[in-house]
Amino acid sequence: MIDLRSDTVTTPTAEMRKVMADAKVGDDVFGEDPTVNALEKKIAKMFGFEAGLFTPSGTMANQLAVNMLTDQGDEVLIEETGHIFNYESTAASHLSSVLLRPLKGQKGKLSADLLKDTVRGQKEWEPQTRVIALENSTNKGGGCCYTEQELAAISSFATQNELGIHLDGARIWNAMTATNTAPSFYSRIADTMSVCFSKGLGAPVGSMLLSSQENITGARRMRKMWGGGMRQIGLLAAAADYAIEHHLSKLKEDHRRARELAETVSQCSQLSIDLESVETNILIFDVNGMPAEQAVELLAEEGIKVVPFGPQTLRATFHFQIDDEDLQRVKGAFYSIFN
Amino acid sequence: MIDLRSDTVTTPTAEMRKVMADAKVGDDVFGEDPTVNALEKKIAKMFGFEAGLFTPSGTMANQLAVNMLTDQGDEVLIEETGHIFNYESTAASHLSSVLLRPLKGQKGKLSADLLKDTVRGQKEWEPQTRVIALENSTNKGGGCCYTEQELAAISSFATQNELGIHLDGARIWNAMTATNTAPSFYSRIADTMSVCFSKGLGAPVGSMLLSSQENITGARRMRKMWGGGMRQIGLLAAAADYAIEHHLSKLKEDHRRARELAETVSQCSQLSIDLESVETNILIFDVNGMPAEQAVELLAEEGIKVVPFGPQTLRATFHFQIDDEDLQRVKGAFYSIFN
Amino acid sequence: MIDLRSDTVTTPTAEMRKVMADAKVGDDVFGEDPTVNALEKKIAKMFGFEAGLFTPSGTMANQLAVNMLTDQGDEVLIEETGHIFNYESTAASHLSSVLLRPLKGQKGKLSADLLKDTVRGQKEWEPQTRVIALENSTNKGGGCCYTEQELAAISSFATQNELGIHLDGARIWNAMTATNTAPSFYSRIADTMSVCFSKGLGAPVGSMLLSSQENITGARRMRKMWGGGMRQIGLLAAAADYAIEHHLSKLKEDHRRARELAETVSQCSQLSIDLESVETNILIFDVNGMPAEQAVELLAEEGIKVVPFGPQTLRATFHFQIDDEDLQRVKGAFYSIFN
Amino acid sequence: MIDLRSDTVTTPTAEMRKVMADAKVGDDVFGEDPTVNALEKKIAKMFGFEAGLFTPSGTMANQLAVNMLTDQGDEVLIEETGHIFNYESTAASHLSSVLLRPLKGQKGKLSADLLKDTVRGQKEWEPQTRVIALENSTNKGGGCCYTEQELAAISSFATQNELGIHLDGARIWNAMTATNTAPSFYSRIADTMSVCFSKGLGAPVGSMLLSSQENITGARRMRKMWGGGMRQIGLLAAAADYAIEHHLSKLKEDHRRARELAETVSQCSQLSIDLESVETNILIFDVNGMPAEQAVELLAEEGIKVVPFGPQTLRATFHFQIDDEDLQRVKGAFYSIFN
Repeated sequence: MIDLRSDTVTTPTAEMRKVMADAKVGDDVFGEDPTVNALEKKIAKMFGFEAGLFTPSGTMANQLAVNMLTDQGDEVLIEETGHIFNYESTAASHLSSVLLRPLKGQKGKLSADLLKDTVRGQKEWEPQTRVIALENSTNKGGGCCYTEQELAAISSFATQNELGIHLDGARIWNAMTATNTAPSFYSRIADTMSVCFSKGLGAPVGSMLLSSQENITGARRMRKMWGGGMRQIGLLAAAADYAIEHHLSKLKEDHRRARELAETVSQCSQLSIDLESVETNILIFDVNGMPAEQAVELLAEEGIKVVPFGPQTLRATFHFQIDDEDLQRVKGAFYSIFN
Repeated sequence: MIDLRSDTVTTPTAEMRKVMADAKVGDDVFGEDPTVNALEKKIAKMFGFEAGLFTPSGTMANQLAVNMLTDQGDEVLIEETGHIFNYESTAASHLSSVLLRPLKGQKGKLSADLLKDTVRGQKEWEPQTRVIALENSTNKGGGCCYTEQELAAISSFATQNELGIHLDGARIWNAMTATNTAPSFYSRIADTMSVCFSKGLGAPVGSMLLSSQENITGARRMRKMWGGGMRQIGLLAAAADYAIEHHLSKLKEDHRRARELAETVSQCSQLSIDLESVETNILIFDVNGMPAEQAVELLAEEGIKVVPFGPQTLRATFHFQIDDEDLQRVKGAFYSIFN
Repeated sequence: MIDLRSDTVTTPTAEMRKVMADAKVGDDVFGEDPTVNALEKKIAKMFGFEAGLFTPSGTMANQLAVNMLTDQGDEVLIEETGHIFNYESTAASHLSSVLLRPLKGQKGKLSADLLKDTVRGQKEWEPQTRVIALENSTNKGGGCCYTEQELAAISSFATQNELGIHLDGARIWNAMTATNTAPSFYSRIADTMSVCFSKGLGAPVGSMLLSSQENITGARRMRKMWGGGMRQIGLLAAAADYAIEHHLSKLKEDHRRARELAETVSQCSQLSIDLESVETNILIFDVNGMPAEQAVELLAEEGIKVVPFGPQTLRATFHFQIDDEDLQRVKGAFYSIFN
Repeated sequence: MIDLRSDTVTTPTAEMRKVMADAKVGDDVFGEDPTVNALEKKIAKMFGFEAGLFTPSGTMANQLAVNMLTDQGDEVLIEETGHIFNYESTAASHLSSVLLRPLKGQKGKLSADLLKDTVRGQKEWEPQTRVIALENSTNKGGGCCYTEQELAAISSFATQNELGIHLDGARIWNAMTATNTAPSFYSRIADTMSVCFSKGLGAPVGSMLLSSQENITGARRMRKMWGGGMRQIGLLAAAADYAIEHHLSKLKEDHRRARELAETVSQCSQLSIDLESVETNILIFDVNGMPAEQAVELLAEEGIKVVPFGPQTLRATFHFQIDDEDLQRVKGAFYSIFN
């Protein structure tokens, strides 16, 4: 099977497993795991933040960020397709007592224009707008990326209005690859940022929250309270480190393959796609003349897994365990089924 | 001053105060206040619910309803201008750990059509859609009312999808007056309902939650936990009872006056209004050629208070302490300022 | 019936009702109720705090205090019979995410000695001790009062350990009467304080939170979120003001009567009491040879209501609606039943 | 260094790492990790529960249990030294809005006798007692174990009072070894149970919640909400499985060594210990004539790590990475320092 459902399905390679088996470990609840400590320093430095905190999931990293940047009664502005609004149950309500206010942006992105006149909270019965939550690249937005100009404009708006910015960087690796952005740029526009090691990078488990030392110290306490304090996780950190060293550079190949399949899609009479929206490893496209579920089944019969993303919409996601040979098979199947 | 800012500004009349001064009271925390007990029974019976619970505010009644109808992880669908989303801070997040999902309806109203395809929660990372929260009449929606047909269609959708319905009836008195609906109709379409005694009805304090006996028993516990258990409140219940007996029937006069002012507004060259939207005691209208704040000031100079409701939008609200003489003064001022 | 169950059963007198009926009111949600505003200023000044906030109940005032003095993950030390631990459901958990750590004191009182070695929180898995919650006079502790020396010692401990102090002063009126303490003393030892108008003072509804202006501003927002924002409550504030002016000075009579009954109790062969523990208006005493429930029934047959406070323990509470004639009847009944 | 601080400091062996490196994995968020699925079935079957759920920590497993067995407003009875009260920050307050009510038992254990008269909640202002939380073996209680009779008596009390039982079985492996109890016994007395793979068993990460299928389904949702949903964790599950197969049987050696050191301790003139309290792998003992911190330092100079457990109290914990040779060194050091 060629699994294009998500880049979360990547599995550790033999080399990565070897590195894990050899990793030095200690008790991370006591702060004594050398491999975790080194990874937290390395990633924080890479992005220009003061400190980092390894977490069992991206959801926990995002929610710790929301928790650090808000108080009870606060409001977080977020694009309506954002991960925090759609894929994290009601965690922001439950764990931080905040309101998520969804705004309708484009391709999963907010903009400084859209944010105008959204800030509220002077009246004691109003939620107090405190944080803008961004996702880069966007998941439900089809893998689109913010330009540095767009982020700088939002950051400027946030500063003027005394709002914090959280950047959900589950796929920041794809965004920085596609837009050729220096990692340190992100710490200039965001107060907190989450990154994920287990999507396109291919580590089995783990995300990281990046922020100021003060926020990370506070987040460590909340991580423990929420049950995210783990013991000898140097093995997981070793896998993440390996992924950064060996898989990060492969993302541009995923992007190339995604674009190549996008062109195939654009040539299939029963499919349609906005070619410009394919900026990274994700394609979202429409099927004409049949329901999405049927298209999923037809592809499955050819050994290809994709996911429905609407009544007549599909999503396909590339990752390093899909190679050029797989791509050719997928393209052939698309032509034969949808043309 | 003629205060058209809101119908919450009504104050108890001399007759109402006399009734309050003569009220029998007891300790309501022990369930021993006879006037409260009688009022809870009376209002529940009026609307066809099993039981009622007096609360210090409409916010508490609404939030108790959300709490009774949901669990952690659940989602409440609400029109984006709804009171629960805009005027109750982040109470639904804080007190019930639920997500409020705002939908863009018309004049503050949802519809069965709009609700289609909104139900989610099969995946364990998704909020579980459990409740539809309606407001009738709508506050930010300009005092518009649901027709019985619209409510029946939403109720039918809710039943099919196993969703609860909460009806924020802060101004249900206006809605049932304007649409000539029997009060008992509302218990047929809603699981919980809040009503308010201190807006157009003119009691100084108090709302009531209506629902099944089981929900009311549960809500009593939560009311105590949130600090809403009060002692000798028979005086407040007596005022509410007086308001039902003597002020409810006056609402149709408020509606007539609101329509009369709406016609004046439609004739002023600097103002514009959707005449059809004026269904009850509230007018929302636009000012052309000047900011809302300036219009507010010009009216204040004539002894008339209204509130800005957008950059070029105003709201005026009628209540029984505005009589026909006041109306004539207001109309005159409008003609002279805005024509 | 002579109702000695609690001082919460007091009802407004004819004079108080007249004052209520004449009270000036406004919309307190907008901060426009002159009688409430005046009362908040008056009580704050009386006790030496910067500001006050009227609340529907003592529970809400206490919980607002806890909320202002803590963050998620914090711990509140409290004597194990304290109101916040026993009579406010799980509000401190629910509304502020804090842990209540009960300590076993004497007669409901903590002491600086007892607090030694209780502060924790250096480890990230530990609750962080942040607040000491005191009750004065103590309810379940039998109406006992802290001496100024005891409070000063606790305050000194709190300062050294950077802990806040909340004083549940539901019956501070009794305590300051019994110990002859200047009201302003309490603001020197406590960061927040709640006082109640509807117990011995005899107002029908209402408590007040006292603290710094900053805490009160924050508490106003939380009060609104929890549903405690009410409209024209000048009538309730007028009753509270009347109670301060006319009923406060009567408390010493309640204390005298309580002591007189305590002596009777000490002379009854089937009863026993620690005479020294009767410091204010509350008596807690033991029944020998019959269960508490039976003693309650025997007294009820004589028209006297008290409450069971343990398998063989009763509580009787005096208030201004029990006069000397009532006292004589009660004493007579006690002699005839229990001797 | 011989590290007797805790059994959490165990690190994965070379054999365990090899098994991890070879583990089959899948995306556990999608329920597709075969190694996790197999482990959850295996452990559930072992203890006689319907289902299991892998968690990143014992704290998360315990808190999921509390969440499943309670509603807002409920109270959990727990021995005052229990892990949930002392080592999980304020998680039970924050995540489940419940009150923890600590009771003073013996050696960390509750008893049916102690529980008598503790159940409350009939009044709407009282927390509702709903759950008894037990720990077996006890951590701060010195590794003591419940007998089957003791557990059966508590279970019987719980049934009569309609209370749930959660068993914190972080060290259930030690308890069942020491008391020779069949694992399936625990599912007969507990509604939920947590077990830990990363203490004496030596896996690097992970605990498991065991309960009914319904509770586990609900707990999966909450685990996701709290950020505990992880991806390819078959590697961690493989380590846990290895630990069960190869390390469980070694615990009786840890117990023997602990007893041997306890005898040494009892012979040292400067130390004292209750020999009967050493039932498993933990020793808690007192130092005479010097503070605990100084004793810790003297041992550290001999290459031995223990932890202070009070002003003059120490704890030492055995695990499979301490062998007989280490034991002889430790005994020698104890004799030379403390005799």
